[in-house]
Formats: sequence, C-alpha cells, structure tokens
Amino acid sequence: MAEFTLDARLAADSVPVIDLPLCSVRLMNDARFAWLLLVPRRAGMSELHDLDEADQEQLWRDIRSTTQALRAVAPCDKLNIGALGNIVRQLHVHVVARMVGDAAWPGPVWGHEQPSPHGTVEIERTIASLRQAFRSL
Amino acid sequence: MAEFTLDARLAADSVPVIDLPLCSVRLMNDARFAWLLLVPRRAGMSELHDLDEADQEQLWRDIRSTTQALRAVAPCDKLNIGALGNIVRQLHVHVVARMVGDAAWPGPVWGHEQPSPHGTVEIERTIASLRQAFRSL
Repeated sequence: MAEFTLDARLAADSVPVIDLPLCSVRLMNDARFAWLLLVPRRAGMSELHDLDEADQEQLWRDIRSTTQALRAVAPCDKLNIGALGNIVRQLHVHVVARMVGDAAWPGPVWGHEQPSPHGTVEIERTIASLRQAFRSL
Repeated sequence: MAEFTLDARLAADSVPVIDLPLCSVRLMNDARFAWLLLVPRRAGMSELHDLDEADQEQLWRDIRSTTQALRAVAPCDKLNIGALGNIVRQLHVHVVARMVGDAAWPGPVWGHEQPSPHGTVEIERTIASLRQAFRSL
C-alpha cells in the first residue's frame, strides 16, 4: 500500500496541531476564522466511502473530538462541518467555528475571498490552546 | 419533549424522498445539482453535539446510506457533504453529487445564485429513482 503523504496545497494552507487516531488535525492559516482540517492518514483516499468501515467510524469519532476541542477554545455561534474536495482531492474534512458577522457570514467559508494569515505569535498561541483542549477531552 | 416539526424554509426548498432510521431525506428542488438533505427527526437540534450519542452514530449511518443511494442514481465526480446551518438553524446535512463544470464548480453550492426548480415530471422521476436506490441498499 502506498504511504500517506499530505497534499501539497493542504500543507501550504495549514499548520499541524495534533494527530488523532485516524486524522491529522491542522489549523488553517486564516485569521478570519477558527478553522480546522482533518486529514485521514490513509493514502489514495478521496471520498468518505474510499475508507474502510472501521476508518469511516473512526473519522466520525475524530470529527466529534475536533468539534469539542474547537468549541473549547473558540467562540462559536454555529459550527460548520464540510467535506468538499472539489479543488484538493485528498480526503479532508473542515470544521469551522462560525460567528454571526464573520468575514463570510452567513455564506460558507470555502472560496470566500483571500485568506488573512495569522501572525506568528497568534498562531503559536492558538495551536497551544488547541493542543491543550484536545488533551483535556 | 417537543414534537419534531420540519423547518418552514427547508420544507419550502425541498421535497420528501424517504425516512431513514433517524433522518428524513429530502431532495432540494434545484435542478442544477443532485442535492439531498438529511434532517434528523428530533426537536430543538441545531448542532451535531445536540444529538445524543446514539443519534450521532445513527446520523453517520444515515449519511453513509444517503451517499450510497445518491451515487447509484446521479453522475458524480465528487461528493460534497456539509452541515452548515448558518441560515436555517434546524440541524440538517447536505449531500450533493458534484460534477466538474456544474453551475457552482469548483465552489460550494451553498448560497450560489438562485435555484432552478425541477419540472414536475423530472422531480417525480428523480424521487422514484432515489427511493428505489435507498430500498436496494
């Protein structure tokens, strides 16, 4: 079986937070939103149904852990969860804490104008808070 | 416990297809996309984590059944699955069969211009095919 390698665009757009049983959790480098990515560490996956049954179940558990951790650190009026992959085909799931009046509200975040990168200090602080939240689950 | 009532906007935008163990599956009345909605028949739910554990697990099974049935009847280059709820707060999940070059490609379908309603014959035919596909799972 081919080895898993993170898609180059996902790697460029996000930074690592923590590894869950199936998925690597990454923070999108976009200060407009508290926005996490989950990427199952399985090679050649594009659709949910490409995963075997056990991995599909684990993906759901990883999604649920991620929503809990994100809500613990980010203000959130509405969670958005999405698996699209129209541009990057490697299977990945978005979990985004939306706020009324945020940059894309009430529309989806995907494809909404240009990202606004985090500052270095801010991104380190956010990652540290997220790791703490995941470890406290 | 309050009785479940379908949100008025979801009711206006979609038509019933079939009831799964937890969710009512509905077809969005938008001929631009093969687009299904899943609505858990539970009152007062807005976020995934509002559901109890058993319902969260069942939601995932209902989502997976829906992706299978949709792929059986609709051409699909990429499945899009999303739970947003920024506008309609009643918990609902979108499952959309996307095609390269469709009306919103490669962007998300949500909020993309105006829906194009199905014709009466076409919508009846689509619903019949979907029911057949769900029953063949």
